[in-house]
Amino acid sequence: MSTIKFCSNCGHTVTRKIPAGDQLPRAVCEHCGTVHYENPRVVVGCVPEWEGRILLCRRAIEPRRGYWTAPAGFLEIGESVHAAAARETTEEAMAEVEVGTLLSVVNVLHAAQVHVMFRARMRDAQHGAGAESLETALFQESEIPWGDIAFASIHFALQRYLTDRRERLERIHFHDIVHSAH
Amino acid sequence: MSTIKFCSNCGHTVTRKIPAGDQLPRAVCEHCGTVHYENPRVVVGCVPEWEGRILLCRRAIEPRRGYWTAPAGFLEIGESVHAAAARETTEEAMAEVEVGTLLSVVNVLHAAQVHVMFRARMRDAQHGAGAESLETALFQESEIPWGDIAFASIHFALQRYLTDRRERLERIHFHDIVHSAH
Repeated sequence: MSTIKFCSNCGHTVTRKIPAGDQLPRAVCEHCGTVHYENPRVVVGCVPEWEGRILLCRRAIEPRRGYWTAPAGFLEIGESVHAAAARETTEEAMAEVEVGTLLSVVNVLHAAQVHVMFRARMRDAQHGAGAESLETALFQESEIPWGDIAFASIHFALQRYLTDRRERLERIHFHDIVHSAH
Repeated sequence: MSTIKFCSNCGHTVTRKIPAGDQLPRAVCEHCGTVHYENPRVVVGCVPEWEGRILLCRRAIEPRRGYWTAPAGFLEIGESVHAAAARETTEEAMAEVEVGTLLSVVNVLHAAQVHVMFRARMRDAQHGAGAESLETALFQESEIPWGDIAFASIHFALQRYLTDRRERLERIHFHDIVHSAH
């Protein structure tokens, strides 16, 4: 799934080969010697709760525009996973949260992503649509639009969140997604 | 800390700017329009135990050649975090492990890495130096070479592992490392 055609260090075309001492083919620049490693990206988010209700956002952007999700996005350089979960919630749902315990780690293998979700408590009832959202809403468990959840990893996290809450547990749930329509 | 000078898609030089709708400067190719996102990489490893002793490897490669570490390395595309922990243990310490509970998540902010460590149980007493190790050894708690541990995140994970073991707990420990000599 490499998209690297040119060396980002010197601009020459790269070749695909297994470097000495390595196990996997990489994009290698024969001109300047740079090996371009490609690794999974980390997506971090949370399930924000306010008085028993769950905050979700309806996506204003692709992929999965119009579908509902929990606030989540790519971990940035220089940022902790907790900070990323809180930042994404501010950006996408205009809500302030206290990030709680780790809820789920989902290996989204076909997308080269790891989705890390935390439990979170909203600091107040405020929320609203950020630039990447069409709307936001607080849902009772019975109101969650299960058929319109944007991503399988978020569906998984929400279900585990609610199961644990019913049992008054805070477990960590691991899951692999090898392929899915979304 | 961007090292991107040329577009990996078309080979033209990139410029650094905040794309529309984004919050942070990225390496953007004005020629083909590609935005080159750079995100933290995930390092996964484990603390393998055999009959109460901990398996460590002495590094044969830089950084920190000659220092001791637990088996760990970069998560590869298409690989789950559990699979990566087991693979790195096979590669670096020639040992087979059953990966257990999540031990630590350390944001190594200055290195743009997230270090994820699991508890693990060795399937048998076999171990040995893989290509990236000078030697491997099983250490009683009192024998661990604390002054010669290669990385702060591994030092943290080992200490928390032992504290939890003494208390018969298996907690998850989060930690941020903003800057360190190694």
